[in-house]
This record gives sequence, structure tokens and C-alpha cells, in this order.
Amino acid sequence: MYAIGIDIGGMSIKLGLVNEQGEIICQSRFKTATTVNENVNSMVEHVKNLIEQAKLSQKDILGIGIGCPGAVTSETGVVAYLPNLNWENVPLAKMLNEHFDMPIKISNDANVATLGEVIYGCAKNYSTVVMFTLGTGVGGGIVIDKKLFEGGFSRGAELGHFTLILDGEQCSCGRKGCVECYASATALINQTKQAMLEDKDSSMWTFVNGNIDNVDGRTAFECSKTGDKTANKVVDKYVYYLAESMLSVFNIFRPEAFILGGGISAQGDYLINKLKAHCEKFDYGYRDAPRTEILTAKLGNDAGIIGAAALFR
Amino acid sequence: MYAIGIDIGGMSIKLGLVNEQGEIICQSRFKTATTVNENVNSMVEHVKNLIEQAKLSQKDILGIGIGCPGAVTSETGVVAYLPNLNWENVPLAKMLNEHFDMPIKISNDANVATLGEVIYGCAKNYSTVVMFTLGTGVGGGIVIDKKLFEGGFSRGAELGHFTLILDGEQCSCGRKGCVECYASATALINQTKQAMLEDKDSSMWTFVNGNIDNVDGRTAFECSKTGDKTANKVVDKYVYYLAESMLSVFNIFRPEAFILGGGISAQGDYLINKLKAHCEKFDYGYRDAPRTEILTAKLGNDAGIIGAAALFR
Repeated sequence: MYAIGIDIGGMSIKLGLVNEQGEIICQSRFKTATTVNENVNSMVEHVKNLIEQAKLSQKDILGIGIGCPGAVTSETGVVAYLPNLNWENVPLAKMLNEHFDMPIKISNDANVATLGEVIYGCAKNYSTVVMFTLGTGVGGGIVIDKKLFEGGFSRGAELGHFTLILDGEQCSCGRKGCVECYASATALINQTKQAMLEDKDSSMWTFVNGNIDNVDGRTAFECSKTGDKTANKVVDKYVYYLAESMLSVFNIFRPEAFILGGGISAQGDYLINKLKAHCEKFDYGYRDAPRTEILTAKLGNDAGIIGAAALFR
Repeated sequence: MYAIGIDIGGMSIKLGLVNEQGEIICQSRFKTATTVNENVNSMVEHVKNLIEQAKLSQKDILGIGIGCPGAVTSETGVVAYLPNLNWENVPLAKMLNEHFDMPIKISNDANVATLGEVIYGCAKNYSTVVMFTLGTGVGGGIVIDKKLFEGGFSRGAELGHFTLILDGEQCSCGRKGCVECYASATALINQTKQAMLEDKDSSMWTFVNGNIDNVDGRTAFECSKTGDKTANKVVDKYVYYLAESMLSVFNIFRPEAFILGGGISAQGDYLINKLKAHCEKFDYGYRDAPRTEILTAKLGNDAGIIGAAALFR
């Protein structure tokens, strides 16, 4: 049996037909339109095309899984709030069910990315897993006994929004000092720029061709690999923020595995080894506790589609 | 059917026979002895006496539930580490099963206290519930869909040990700035003493008969009720620490209810109303999110026995 996975983004909506092994058989995408109806109609059309393209019929499909940024009420299949597309209380499952006689499941995008990694990706051998997606913000996903835990009312698992530094930097959520303010890619970019402004001789300036607007999540990491002292300091501080945030998660969930996703996770072992070195110092949370494996996500750009389809596994 | 609940403390071990309504039919206690065998033998004797006293036989008992401070491996019924009694890797379930042909379940004391409140206490009407026990440290319990979530390897739910202030006060766990360093009764006492030393005119000095060693978790609260400005400041700061820690938990779990237990919770509505007032400021975490009810524990001194028995409900 197959499942459809839909990955709703701010710029485009990606769709795929996924088999039981988590492989995408065929996929498509379209640019998001202005109105809810336009977007939903396009989804319907694209899903029908995918099924036809694979020479299947609707009875071969277990259901349609959808990953969506913003606030989702999974139980009712309602997208409560999706700021990027100006959606508010859109009964997406109900709207799709007018065209498809099959179950529709919707969850937060970070949640489905985590589920995808546990069912089909880097954490296949683990049951209780937590993930950070390090991007513009810090998203979070929690899987307990191979099942998604979305928090009460399906509105928890906001792992970017627990406090790292009380009364610290202003967070978009209204509070101050959240993990997201220090461990997101956005935060790393700000930390990198700050350090560059304080050290005009850093090789990071050459790396970005003298233009600070070219700084991204790789700048400090790549220059630290070539021995730039200021870049090293930026990376060490960032690792400290991230590792401390992870230790908090370890003490709360003691997951068998912890996954890093998002652009920053492309740093792979270079980042993982530094994180482990910090965690090793704290026996209560790591060294002498049951060990949490630290992994990097492997589904990449397909995580949204595959994770959404995994809602049916 | 009945269940036995055993509450292992550092000074004494309390035991009770609990009915399906969560009422203690009869109970007993004994002072802890030096060796593991002495303690286990006394447990066996006391359990047998309780069953006899209630004119029941072992077949009327669903099982023996045990709440225990320190680190417990629930799956195997082994007390991995109980510093107060110098226990290390004690196979308690196996030892008791030599005397009782019934299931034995062991969990951390804060975990069983939470379960007891959800099954029989203040949170009976809720399914997903988190609790802080504010005492010497900050213990935590997590109940999801009426079932205890102990974290992977049954070693999570250490809610006193996520970061509130990165690089803050030294915590007993080895890290710095944990919730426990700011929100425990111990922390409140230190915060109270500090404020008193800075204000020799505070009425708190009269409250403790001029002896700072008499300060306890009530001192600042009681004097703030009579309008003492310094006491007010202590309470406000403590509420800030506690409410911010709670908001982090709300964002992670979005529980239907949050329970405050331990001595400090005796402040009841005076404390709860201040916590709510702080939480109300943050729409993302509280005001416009699905509402988390804030409750105070009601099982009191019996929480350990009743919660341990609740492992069989």
C-alpha cells in the first residue's frame, strides 16, 4: 500500500506518492497561490495526477498525510494558523475529503520531519526520539514508542520555545531567551556577523567576499575548519548554546536518539563531535545516564513528503 | 480489587492498602534500617500484616506499587541508585516476588505522586498532565493519556534539570542554572535569606524571631501577605522563576493541567493567582494557546502510598 505525503511551505507545496519502504515513487510541486481554495484545488489535482501517473487507484492509497508549518489541530484536521499563507482555521482535512474517500492526517512540519526520520530515516533503530530542526527558527518533534507526541491539543513539542537564558534575547513568541534565540540558523548568522564586526581581520570577511550580507549558517563553521580564531569562538559558543539546550531535552525525555535537522546539520560529524564533547562533561545528563545517540537527519529535502506519508505507518 | 502502595523515603518507609477509589484502607510505616535485606524483610512483613489486617488474601491484591527517590529502572524493577539508603542496583521487584506471587511495579517518587494526582487526586478530569514537586529539589512527573511517561530507559522526567539560566547557579546535577536552582523550596529559602541580609528592617526578621536559621518556604510568602516590601520582592522574583519554568513546560507538553506539589504548593490560590498573572502575559505559551489549568496537589502526605498503588490502575 502507498500513502500520499504533502509538504506545505510558504513558497511552494510539494507532493509525493510514497511506498511502504518510504521511497517516493513520483512527486510534483506547485507555487502557493493567494487563496485557500486555489491552493486546495491544486492539491486535489496534483494528488489525482500522482495516483494516475503511478497507474494506481484511490483504493491503493492508505491516506493523505500533510505536514504544515504553524499551528495545526490534528484531531480535527484543521489548520488553525498558518501565517505564511494567511490561513486561519482552514478545515483542510474536510475540504480534501470532499474529493478523496480516504483518511487525511495533518501535523506540524517539524513533527512529521521527525516521524519520517524515525520510520524511514536516520533513527529507524530507535523508538523514543527527539529532533531539533535548526532553521529560521528551531522546530521540534517528539516520537515516543514510534508514535508522534504532539503535546496536548496537538500544540506542544515547541522545542524552540523553552528558556535557555531567562530574560535573554527577545523571542518572536513574546518571551525572552528561548532556545530559538540562540540555537537557530538565524541566531548563528547574527552571532557570526557580530563577531565579524568585532574582528575586521577574520578570514570570514574573505569567505563572504567582504559583504556581511553574504553570511549564512556555514560561514563560521567553514572558517573555523581552516583555523580562524574568531570563527572558532563563534562555533564554540554556538555549540555551547545548542548542547546545553540538548542536555535539557535529554533530562526531560532521555530519548534513545536525538536528531539534528535543518541546514546546520549538514556540518555532520564536525558538529556532532563538538556537541558530544560538551555533553560528555555532564554525567547526570549524559555520560553516566543511559546514552542518547546524537544523529543528523538524512531525508533532506524529501523529509516533508516522506514524513507526512509516515503518518500512515 | 486492591493494591499495595509503598513509599520509600530516606528516613522511613510507608505502606498502605489502597482500594479502587484510591482510599487507604489501612497503613503502616517503619524506620529505614541499614542493610537492604533488613529493609526488604520489613517490607515483606508489613505488607503481609496489611493484607491480614484487612482480612484479605494475596489473590485480592492486584500488585505492589513502589515509589522510590533516586534512579529506578522500571522495566526490570531494579533500584539503580538510591543515595539516601546507599542502594545500588538492588533488584527490589525480584526480591519481593520471592514472597509475593503478584506483579511488582517500581517508579520514581515524583512520577508516582503525579500519577496519583491524575488517577485519584486534583487532576482526575485531565489526561495529559505535568507536575513539579517543589521541595529540597524540583521533582517532575509526566502523565500522557492517563499513563506515566518516565522518559526513555525510565530515566527522564527530570523536570528540575532543564536550564532556566544558562551558566547560572551551580546545580547538584553538575550543570549550571537548572530550574531546581531557582524554583525549589531550597532556592526560595536562600533567596529569602539573601533579601533579609540586605534589609535588616524587613518584618521577616520578626517572623523568624530574629534567627535566620528559622527561615523556611513560608517566610517570604507569609510576610508578603502582610505587605512587607522586601518579602513581596522575594515572592515576585520566585514567582517569575517558577512561572517561566512552567511556560517552558507548557510549550513542550501543552498539558491540559499542571500540578504544583511539595510544601510551597500549600500557598494555594495566593501562589496560583500570581503564577497565572505572569503566564497571562505570554499569549504564545498561555493566553491564546489551549489553556493549561494550574492546580495544587491534594493527596498530601499520602501521595506516595496512593500514587504507588495507582501504578495498578
